[in-house]
Parts: sequence; C-alpha cells; structure tokens
Amino acid sequence: MEKKNITIGVLLSGCGNRDGSEIHESVMTLLALAKANVEYRCFAPDMEQTFVINHLTGEKMHEKRNVLVEAARIARGKITPLNLFDAKQCDALILPGGQGAALNLSSFAKDGTASIIHPEVVRAVTSMHELKKPLGALCIAPTILAKLIPGVSLTIGTDQKTAQTLESMGAKHKETKQRTIVVDPMKKVVTSPCYMLNATVADIAHEAEQVVQAILELLQKK
Amino acid sequence: MEKKNITIGVLLSGCGNRDGSEIHESVMTLLALAKANVEYRCFAPDMEQTFVINHLTGEKMHEKRNVLVEAARIARGKITPLNLFDAKQCDALILPGGQGAALNLSSFAKDGTASIIHPEVVRAVTSMHELKKPLGALCIAPTILAKLIPGVSLTIGTDQKTAQTLESMGAKHKETKQRTIVVDPMKKVVTSPCYMLNATVADIAHEAEQVVQAILELLQKK
Repeated sequence: MEKKNITIGVLLSGCGNRDGSEIHESVMTLLALAKANVEYRCFAPDMEQTFVINHLTGEKMHEKRNVLVEAARIARGKITPLNLFDAKQCDALILPGGQGAALNLSSFAKDGTASIIHPEVVRAVTSMHELKKPLGALCIAPTILAKLIPGVSLTIGTDQKTAQTLESMGAKHKETKQRTIVVDPMKKVVTSPCYMLNATVADIAHEAEQVVQAILELLQKK
Repeated sequence: MEKKNITIGVLLSGCGNRDGSEIHESVMTLLALAKANVEYRCFAPDMEQTFVINHLTGEKMHEKRNVLVEAARIARGKITPLNLFDAKQCDALILPGGQGAALNLSSFAKDGTASIIHPEVVRAVTSMHELKKPLGALCIAPTILAKLIPGVSLTIGTDQKTAQTLESMGAKHKETKQRTIVVDPMKKVVTSPCYMLNATVADIAHEAEQVVQAILELLQKK
C-alpha cells in the first residue's frame, strides 16, 4: 500500500494512565495511523512530571521523572521535544488521554475551569488551529481543546462534573458511549471518550481508528 | 459477542523496550486477546529491574525501578505478582518481548546459552508446559522457551547470532519475515519475530493476532 504523504503528530504526556499518557490510547493511536498508511511523529514537552504514581498501589512515589524521557518509552525513542513542533510539518495533531494531559500538559486536574495550559501545548494546538488543520483528542485530553478553541463541540463521555466544567469553559459537550466519536466539522476537532468510560482495549482501538478516519476525511475536504 | 470462558496469562517484564516489556507488543497482545473475546490476566515478577534505560538517549539512568510496578503501567494497575501464578487458572500463557525478557525474566542478554531464567518464570512456564497448555512468545522472549522446553521449534526472525545461540541451547530455529509465526504443534509453542525485525506497529498487531489465533486453535485440539 502506498504512503499517503500525510504526517500526523501525536502529543504525549508521559507513560502511564495515572501520571502520563494512557498507554493503550497512545499505542492504538499509533496503530490506527500506521493502518491508515500515514506517517506519525511523536512529541512531548521536556519537563518534569507533576508527580509519579505507583501504578500498582495508586500511591505517589518519592521520585522525579521527565515527561519527554518517559514518553520516549511509548515512542520507542523516536520522539521530538515539543518546543521543536512546527505546525507546517504536520497535517493534523492528536492528543491521547491519560492523567498526564490534565497534570503535565495542563493543570486541569487541579484547576478545572481555571486550568493553565503548558505554553508549548498552547503554541502547538493554536498554530495548528490557525492553519485550519484538524485536531484530535481522546479521553480527558479534550479539556485542553475546550480551553484553547472557544465554542468547540466535543466529548469526554458521560461524566457530568467534567462535562459541566467544559461547558463553563465555553465548550459544547456531547455525551457519548463506547465506540462513538464527536466531530466538530467547522473547528475541525475530533474527540472520543476512550477510558473516560468503562471500556476495553478493543473499544480503544476502535475509537482511535474512528478518530483517525474522521481526521483523514477532514483533510480531504480542505 | 459471548465470552469464551478462556483465560490467557500475559507475562510482563517492565514497561519499555530497552529495559522492560516492549510496550507495543504487550498492548497488541492484550488487544488480540480482547478482540478474540477471551479474558486476560497480566503477571510480572516483583523484583528490581536489572537497570533503567533513558529511552530518549539510550543511556543508563542512576535509579532503581521495580518490574511489577512498572509493568502495572501497561496493565492499568490490574496485574498479579508472578509468584501467585497458578497454571490451573490459565489456559495459555503469552510472553511479549522487549529487552526485559532478556534482562529481568532471564539473563539471556548477558549470558546467552548459559542464561539463567528467573525461578518464578521457570515455575510458570514449566507448570503450563507440564499441563500441556499452549505457550506464546514474541520477539526476544522465545529465548526463555528455548531454555525451558528442549527441542522446541521457534523463531526470533532472521538474526543469525541469536538464532545460533538458540540452536546451541537445543532449540530448532526457523527464519521468519514480518507477519509470519512459527507453531510447534507437539510442544504447543507459538512464536513470532515482532520487533526483532524492522517492523511497524501494524505488523506487531498482525502478528499478535496470529499468535492468539494459533493458541486458540491449539486449545480447540486438546
């Protein structure tokens, strides 16, 4: 199968659902891109993680880890510091979920409506949006797009409290069940609930494929 | 789709291809099992990693990590210490690859033919084999089965040096290309080369599905 000459960026936030990128959502995004025969490039900010969680016990660990270095585990070393992101070199950008999106890429987990987005994430997302290029976000990552793209339609599943916070930020929230995505065709934003719902890894693979397909359709319309 | 009442164990060795479980191979194994509608249970030994590698630079890091705690990142916290593994509760056992299989589960990376297998891995693998239950192994993990199942037919792809070492351990090595597996029907062992070859994440997903399907066929024949 011939390559499509499309390159899609994947913005990671560490390696693990409790303090970084959700691993299944990240890998399924890479799989969906590979199956669609498009190139992908992984990015992450070169910064200290907000904290490190022991994923066996759920407790905080007394150590420090770097978001870029840990995200490199998912990317098998092929990853670029986010400060080198150039919107002209990517056709779209996808943000997998995991608490890292709300802890490292933004302060949503702590600050909700008043959350602050990491400046390199602001630059990457807004530069893509200004060039009218599609953005995708899974699980809790749509909270970042709610902050940066006023009035965007999106989903984080069915969680009422998070949905209300997003509405208070000016976003339009749509409830979704597993294997359902929300597309905002005007703002070119595609979101899916993934592990915000009680989902299986097969559901995640399905939704990642739906997100990638919707982004490819948005790209064809430009 | 109805559950098949089959439970397959997945033996992890950390979280990251350079010092633990290869993340893509591990997640694609879970995906293949979920798509086949069988239950999976993740296991890992509660031990210190042989070392920790910075996956961005490839250099050793001066810190300690625990194999079970890191593997819990891939398993989203749902993981059992390997010393609690009970062969009677699993219908088959799959070992994804990554250097963790040759560093933590065994000493193959250092000792080759003379490699020593972690006693809990010896117990898990041999107890499954004695009950005539299928075993699967991806990438470099077949080296463990070569040591524990004399005369087994298997593959690690095309790497001549590793293949010769396996032959010197009494295994029969078969060369494979991407998206090809080797089945030893008598010993009920299924192996695939995965990232021992220059593969894409889509190749890994394909091979993991082939391995799971071959294991399910072996289970039907019993």
